[in-house]
Amino acid sequence: MGSSTDDTVAAEETVAADWRTLEPMELTPILSASLDAFYETGFHGTSVREIARRVGVTVPALYYHHENKEGLLIALLELSTSDVLWRSHAADTDGGADPVQRLSNVIEAIVLRMTMRARLAALEGEARYLSPENRQRYRAVRKGIEQIVRQIVEEGTESGAFDVEDSAETTRALLGMCQSIPRWYHAEGTLSPPEVAKKYVKIALKMVGASPRT
Amino acid sequence: MGSSTDDTVAAEETVAADWRTLEPMELTPILSASLDAFYETGFHGTSVREIARRVGVTVPALYYHHENKEGLLIALLELSTSDVLWRSHAADTDGGADPVQRLSNVIEAIVLRMTMRARLAALEGEARYLSPENRQRYRAVRKGIEQIVRQIVEEGTESGAFDVEDSAETTRALLGMCQSIPRWYHAEGTLSPPEVAKKYVKIALKMVGASPRT
Repeated sequence: MGSSTDDTVAAEETVAADWRTLEPMELTPILSASLDAFYETGFHGTSVREIARRVGVTVPALYYHHENKEGLLIALLELSTSDVLWRSHAADTDGGADPVQRLSNVIEAIVLRMTMRARLAALEGEARYLSPENRQRYRAVRKGIEQIVRQIVEEGTESGAFDVEDSAETTRALLGMCQSIPRWYHAEGTLSPPEVAKKYVKIALKMVGASPRT
Repeated sequence: MGSSTDDTVAAEETVAADWRTLEPMELTPILSASLDAFYETGFHGTSVREIARRVGVTVPALYYHHENKEGLLIALLELSTSDVLWRSHAADTDGGADPVQRLSNVIEAIVLRMTMRARLAALEGEARYLSPENRQRYRAVRKGIEQIVRQIVEEGTESGAFDVEDSAETTRALLGMCQSIPRWYHAEGTLSPPEVAKKYVKIALKMVGASPRT
């Protein structure tokens, strides 16, 4: 206890566990109400007045915290994408040097988030309503997630662990398959999030021509 | 010329060519304006008044043709899903008895439609705003597309052409990967729709553990 080696191991274990643990996301009352409203009636179908009504604050009080309606959407999308970005990074790192384990971890992290935070993930469909500059910023973060997956696919192909012809397109197909999960996944369904993740990891490994670690 | 055998061959060739040919979809002025408006500001962000303004008709004239705003969304979704349904059927039939060719054709048909009718395809994200009964009806058609793919996956697995562990989940992953295409595909990009389709066919065949027909 207390030796530096033990501490390091403990810290690594914490990282390893963390990306698999999805506590309910803590949102401010305003952002929580915004997420509800945007999910129910879409970005353009929601008024700032309606969000203020749901929270029980005045419109000026809401503007004190957020510049405008787009500011609310940006705040939610940033929380959402930065959440999946750090989880993907941690999952990747946790896979060590093995491309099969790295890809398995990252797909698991993304699917867990798609199933357990389906409403927040579904909100990404509203990103196309952002103003050009904000859409640019949002795309840069999305690009970060794409880069993590693409690098694994490329390194795995170079090392011979994967058999991939087009790493850019395979990366998009891998992410696309995961992005569609919120469209059909319902928490009341028969499969738990870890079960869905397990299935998608197997499919992802097939897509890159690798065999799963058992 | 004129022998019944020739006629049959000609008819089959017409079917074979047809599902690959996507002429611009003919929409009535009202539906065309509705598609533009729903794409730009979402279902809830669009008013019937705004659609009437775009078409240059009065609101009562619009109601003469369509019951309400939901009726417009349903009409567009039905055109969209029945289009992809018959194309998938024709592509499947055109693949004969070979599961590899059947899956290749169906994925090609779906990707061509996702890239060439990206706006109409993107509208499917608005289906969650339909009333329960209409959502039910819409899901039944979507189910039809799922069944075509699933049957190919199952038959291919039984015949040994494919190596698939979970055909339901693999079917969803195949369709999910295609459904995400409208999110990133832009007509101005470097890849033409047939090029994207070719890449996705290869990836799909990998997902089911088959080799492409070359």
